[in-house]
Amino acid sequence: MAKVATVITNLFEDVEFTEPAKALRDAGHEVVTIEKKAGEQVEGKHGEQLTIDKGIDDVSANDFDALLIPGGFSPDQLRADDRFVAFTKAFMEAEKPVFAICHGPQLLINAKALEGRHATGYKSIAVDMEYAGAKFKDEEVVVCNNQLVTSRTPDDIPAFNREIVKLLK
Amino acid sequence: MAKVATVITNLFEDVEFTEPAKALRDAGHEVVTIEKKAGEQVEGKHGEQLTIDKGIDDVSANDFDALLIPGGFSPDQLRADDRFVAFTKAFMEAEKPVFAICHGPQLLINAKALEGRHATGYKSIAVDMEYAGAKFKDEEVVVCNNQLVTSRTPDDIPAFNREIVKLLK
Repeated sequence: MAKVATVITNLFEDVEFTEPAKALRDAGHEVVTIEKKAGEQVEGKHGEQLTIDKGIDDVSANDFDALLIPGGFSPDQLRADDRFVAFTKAFMEAEKPVFAICHGPQLLINAKALEGRHATGYKSIAVDMEYAGAKFKDEEVVVCNNQLVTSRTPDDIPAFNREIVKLLK
Repeated sequence: MAKVATVITNLFEDVEFTEPAKALRDAGHEVVTIEKKAGEQVEGKHGEQLTIDKGIDDVSANDFDALLIPGGFSPDQLRADDRFVAFTKAFMEAEKPVFAICHGPQLLINAKALEGRHATGYKSIAVDMEYAGAKFKDEEVVVCNNQLVTSRTPDDIPAFNREIVKLLK
C-alpha cells in the first residue's frame, strides 16, 4: 500500500483534507501530515483540528509514494517557505503521483512544475496556472500522464477521490 | 484632493488597509471601501472591522482617481469574482494610480495588467508575478511609470505610504 505525504497548514479547506485522507486510508494507504514541526496543531478554515506527523526538515520525497496538497489558504502560506516548494518539486521530478485540489496547484506553480501539464484548480488561480504554462481545464477532475490529479473545489471531491484511489491501485 | 477606491473583503491584512487609508486621509484624500454590497461588515485577519461604503455594481473606475488594494487573503477572494477583476483592469487601462501591497498584485495578475511592469509583492506570489510578465524586484517599494506602486509586506508600509501620498500630490 502507498505512503502518501500531505503538506498542510492553518486555514486549509477542511474537507479537502479530511475526505481525500479518509478515501486513501479506506483503500489501505497511509497518510502522513507534514508542516514545519512534528506535533504542532493546525486548524482548518472551518475549525477542523489536526496534529502534524512530521516536520518538513525530517522528510524526503524518497520516503513517500505520493503527495496530496489540500486547498484553502494553506498552499499559499506553505509556498512562502522554500522547503515546501522543493519537497513538491521532488515529487514532480520523480514523476510520483501528485494530488492537488482547489488552491493546491499554487505549490506546483512555485515548483515550476506545471509547464505543458493538463490541470485544473480553483477559479481564482486559473490565470496564474495558465501563465505558469498549464493547459487549464474547467473540469471536476483532470488526470495528466497518469501522475498529476487536480480538482477545483470541495464539490469535486467525489471525482477527485475516485481518481486518486484508482491511480494508486 | 483625490478620491481613492479600495477593494477589500474578509481576511484582509489589517494594517495594509488601516495605515495607507490613514496616510491618504491625513493628506486630504477620500478613501471609499468597496466589496459586494454597501453596508456589509468585513473583518481583517487580526479582527479589524470595517463597513463597506459601496457595492461593486454601484461603482465605476470613472468615479475615482486611484485604486488601493490591501493584501492578506482578501485579493485572492476578490479575483474569483470577475467584477473586481474588471474594476482593477479599468484603472490600469486608464493609467490611473494603482497601489497594491502584499497579495494585492494578485488582482493585477487576473487583470493581465502586469506584463512588462516593474513591481513587487509578497514572497509567495513572486513566481506568479514573474510568470504574469512582471519584472519582479525584491524591494520595499517599487514605483513603475509614476502610476503603479507596489510593496511586499506590512514592514514596507512606511515606504509604501510615502510613495502613494507623493504620487497623488
